[in-house]
Amino acid sequence: MIRFYERDPYAPIQYSYEVENILYKGKSKFQEIIVVQNPHFGRMLILDGVVQITERDEFFYHEMLTHVVLHAHPAPKNVIIIGGGDGGAVREVLKHKTVEKVYFVEIDEEVINVSRKFFPKVACDVDDPRVEIKCMDGAEFLKGRDADIDVVIVDSTDIVGFATSLFTEEFFTSVKNCLSRDGFYVTLSESLHFHKEIVIEVQETMKKIFPLVDIYTAPIATYAGNWWTFSVASKGALPREMRQKFSINTKYYSDEIHQHAFLPNKMYEKLMKRKLEW
Amino acid sequence: MIRFYERDPYAPIQYSYEVENILYKGKSKFQEIIVVQNPHFGRMLILDGVVQITERDEFFYHEMLTHVVLHAHPAPKNVIIIGGGDGGAVREVLKHKTVEKVYFVEIDEEVINVSRKFFPKVACDVDDPRVEIKCMDGAEFLKGRDADIDVVIVDSTDIVGFATSLFTEEFFTSVKNCLSRDGFYVTLSESLHFHKEIVIEVQETMKKIFPLVDIYTAPIATYAGNWWTFSVASKGALPREMRQKFSINTKYYSDEIHQHAFLPNKMYEKLMKRKLEW
Repeated sequence: MIRFYERDPYAPIQYSYEVENILYKGKSKFQEIIVVQNPHFGRMLILDGVVQITERDEFFYHEMLTHVVLHAHPAPKNVIIIGGGDGGAVREVLKHKTVEKVYFVEIDEEVINVSRKFFPKVACDVDDPRVEIKCMDGAEFLKGRDADIDVVIVDSTDIVGFATSLFTEEFFTSVKNCLSRDGFYVTLSESLHFHKEIVIEVQETMKKIFPLVDIYTAPIATYAGNWWTFSVASKGALPREMRQKFSINTKYYSDEIHQHAFLPNKMYEKLMKRKLEW
Repeated sequence: MIRFYERDPYAPIQYSYEVENILYKGKSKFQEIIVVQNPHFGRMLILDGVVQITERDEFFYHEMLTHVVLHAHPAPKNVIIIGGGDGGAVREVLKHKTVEKVYFVEIDEEVINVSRKFFPKVACDVDDPRVEIKCMDGAEFLKGRDADIDVVIVDSTDIVGFATSLFTEEFFTSVKNCLSRDGFYVTLSESLHFHKEIVIEVQETMKKIFPLVDIYTAPIATYAGNWWTFSVASKGALPREMRQKFSINTKYYSDEIHQHAFLPNKMYEKLMKRKLEW
């Protein structure tokens, strides 16, 4: 049997997958891009040796990355997505009828092109007229923008290598400066099982910049550690509160999952005091 | 680097672990038993090629297997644990001061012996005077018992091989017959990511026998699929309701996790109608 062994130096369990077929293998200016076919997950997108999405389960991540903050905002119009070259976050954001403009800022154009070709159900909306694709560094794109953005979504690779620039005080300040009054910022922030210290550090850094910071989780089978966290921040708007009725079509996210996903209060306190013993 | 590759034909992702040292390797009448040392998880117990517990994260599983039903019962006295040869469930059950008697029914004595030796912090209470060890088949042990058991806990290996006898209508009937009025039955029931059909079948079979059946989950990094389910049943007692104050010492379980862990209502309905699309 042909297998793919994930290359993730930060995960104490190595995941591996059966490979029925290698559909694409290339190198962009930024990373190695591979698409394989797996009997259970369908097509899988692999960047620099780490699984980014699979056809079968990508919705868990994309729904949870986007819909929590989009429902916590009363009427999101302008959205920035940084990363997310596969188009999954764009597809979910555009389910919200209030959204007029999505700046889709992906540094690596090749990821968008490969996704258009091999993941047509994920990249289905990247060429929607409401979407403006910017192939450039996300931090650069934010500099000097007006404060008219309702939601900023960071959908990067793991917090290593070139993605680390998206987790600095300087970057968070740029995000804050472009957020509207009710605006939200949300980013992946790794696994509560395997990367607890990274989770805490992201929260601590965000707290230096934003008045309100929170965290929620989702179970994602193909990300190491699975118990995946999303860090969210605002100028004061409350992410746990839904300010819009849940009426879009989803597979995992719902109004009850919205409430359910946030870390319980006492557990959150223990996390930030570094008192969770694992 | 020396690695252990898990042998789990029902998991679409294969997990593998670095092995610093093989501490024990033997064959009992029932299964192959291995103990290895891993740099992140510490010692790991492996039965027939599948990871059962690790020193670092065993508490997630053992706390969630036991404390939900023990807190939903007003004053559990008599408890049966079927399986759980490592002693982790026994340790957690004995944290409840009302418990007077634990029948610890493990078919494979070798697992208890290996755990006594290599997992002293897990098997720490297997020789407590309240514990009666019975090395026999759990289904046999239940036959013809009085209805004086407050909690029956099944802590078996995966629902394949010889453990399948613990998931039949006949077995569930035996469990029900020995439960007291406020009694609960709880069992592992595999991953909501990878074994959704098994989860549904366990629930359906339990519903044929018990008036009340429910399900809750916990994130467990070392079990394939991670998003692990526990199926719970009773003669009418409500598992979501805590009838005891939370006052024991735990690392993950708490009163807020108790509420949090149960599958949200609409998601549970969709699960049982086979409408969860993954």
